[in-house]
Amino acid sequence: MRFARLGPVGAEIPVLLDGDRALDLRAVTTDIDGAFLRDGVARAAAAFAAGDLPELDEASTLRVGAPIARPSAVYCIGMNYAAHAAESGSEPPSTLVMFMKSPNTVVGPNDDVEIPPGSVKTDWEVELGIVIGRRASYLASPADARAHIAGFVLANDLSERTWQLEASGGQWSKGKSAPGFCPTGPWLATPDELDADDTGLRSFVNGEPRQDSRTADLIFAIDVIVHELSQVLALEPGDLVLTGTPQGVALSGRYPYLRPGDVVELEIDGLGRQRQTYVATSAAGRE
Amino acid sequence: MRFARLGPVGAEIPVLLDGDRALDLRAVTTDIDGAFLRDGVARAAAAFAAGDLPELDEASTLRVGAPIARPSAVYCIGMNYAAHAAESGSEPPSTLVMFMKSPNTVVGPNDDVEIPPGSVKTDWEVELGIVIGRRASYLASPADARAHIAGFVLANDLSERTWQLEASGGQWSKGKSAPGFCPTGPWLATPDELDADDTGLRSFVNGEPRQDSRTADLIFAIDVIVHELSQVLALEPGDLVLTGTPQGVALSGRYPYLRPGDVVELEIDGLGRQRQTYVATSAAGRE
Repeated sequence: MRFARLGPVGAEIPVLLDGDRALDLRAVTTDIDGAFLRDGVARAAAAFAAGDLPELDEASTLRVGAPIARPSAVYCIGMNYAAHAAESGSEPPSTLVMFMKSPNTVVGPNDDVEIPPGSVKTDWEVELGIVIGRRASYLASPADARAHIAGFVLANDLSERTWQLEASGGQWSKGKSAPGFCPTGPWLATPDELDADDTGLRSFVNGEPRQDSRTADLIFAIDVIVHELSQVLALEPGDLVLTGTPQGVALSGRYPYLRPGDVVELEIDGLGRQRQTYVATSAAGRE
Repeated sequence: MRFARLGPVGAEIPVLLDGDRALDLRAVTTDIDGAFLRDGVARAAAAFAAGDLPELDEASTLRVGAPIARPSAVYCIGMNYAAHAAESGSEPPSTLVMFMKSPNTVVGPNDDVEIPPGSVKTDWEVELGIVIGRRASYLASPADARAHIAGFVLANDLSERTWQLEASGGQWSKGKSAPGFCPTGPWLATPDELDADDTGLRSFVNGEPRQDSRTADLIFAIDVIVHELSQVLALEPGDLVLTGTPQGVALSGRYPYLRPGDVVELEIDGLGRQRQTYVATSAAGRE
């Protein structure tokens, strides 16, 4: 199954996607949140099978929101593709590298992204995102991980490289958490919808290709990530885990950083496509 | 004013503390959360002044919870006391160092702390915590910070040093986010209750003194922290910002790390005292 959230910011309607149709899930759940992902997916499947879900009127005219409600945490894995570690000037890691983004960075896949005032190094990162479906704490082995995963999403782990790497004392979160810095979606796909361990992911800036890789090249694979994180923290239903980005970002020195007017497109086979226009920060963003 | 939350985990009752009395705030708010801290504090003050708040029966027999509901984010400032930077083997930072803890680490000030399986370097850190009262994004100057602060809390920024520093690739969050690793409280004090810019903070292990410093020694002061964070992310009502820890932790090599049976006490003048017993992780923690 594929789930999405359609409508204005803060008033998104949960839907189940059936081909090009969006079926209204409001009779089943108020939101695509941790409680739904833990307990409600089977109810949604049953309602769909019974033909109980009405089509949402004018769905194609609605904004596409992030396909999940704001997570309790956004965990990010760093340097998880060997070629990206190399372009960043690092060796491939021998241990899982984890940092965090502010959960309020999670926005819709096609929302405009405001380049923060003073930013000169805003950079894209296409990533496979894991969405947790069941609390995961001290899992016995990676084989136990999959039962704790609700599904997968496409995300852009945006970075401000000065704040991440130069004015940070080495801790990356400062350059990962600006408002809007985690476009997510368009949909959440349950694990049966794709082979998340070997799917293609790509990014484009102003129509030109940038990243082009496969999740099969992850150094730490999906189940290993969930298992290892569960040894050091408790993953909760609805949490988002970004698995790392492949080579082809501006940090490599091969491409310019993003500027107002640029358009970034990202895609993962089976998880849809994003398209963001980059703009200067509006006065409304300041308070 | 001072606010607290009393009762079992997940069913804490919001109260206003008046000397030794706990006054029931449930007629004013369902919780000490972002919405209350943004809009409800004046209502609580008015109800208190009018004598409308009933005393909570048997308050002294109730568990003390964290004084705030789970935040949307927990931001931590690193190396913010010069002597602690030195004992950690670092120079004092020239720029604000920020990392994050999982919000689900926030627990009551006297709850038992489970030492995670495999941990050999669990370490204490007494810290002044800032609680945000109003969204802060791109503040014009540090002078604007105080209007965005709801109050202050005592917190223990617990760390597993192997996971933070040795098996981390340099990113600290892996060693900061184990379940229960942020005992918070006993109360939230509004800014008028203490001079948060110059108050004493101390920690003790098994009754022996460890840390003993003053917030006047912060390298980046409270208003500077809030202003600088607001340039790189949006602080939200209810968010918790830990301001860093002074010297006197086990990482220094002068004291042993924590083991089951140890008792840690922490205090900040004006913000109360915590007492935690450290225990092995129970089977219930594993799932």
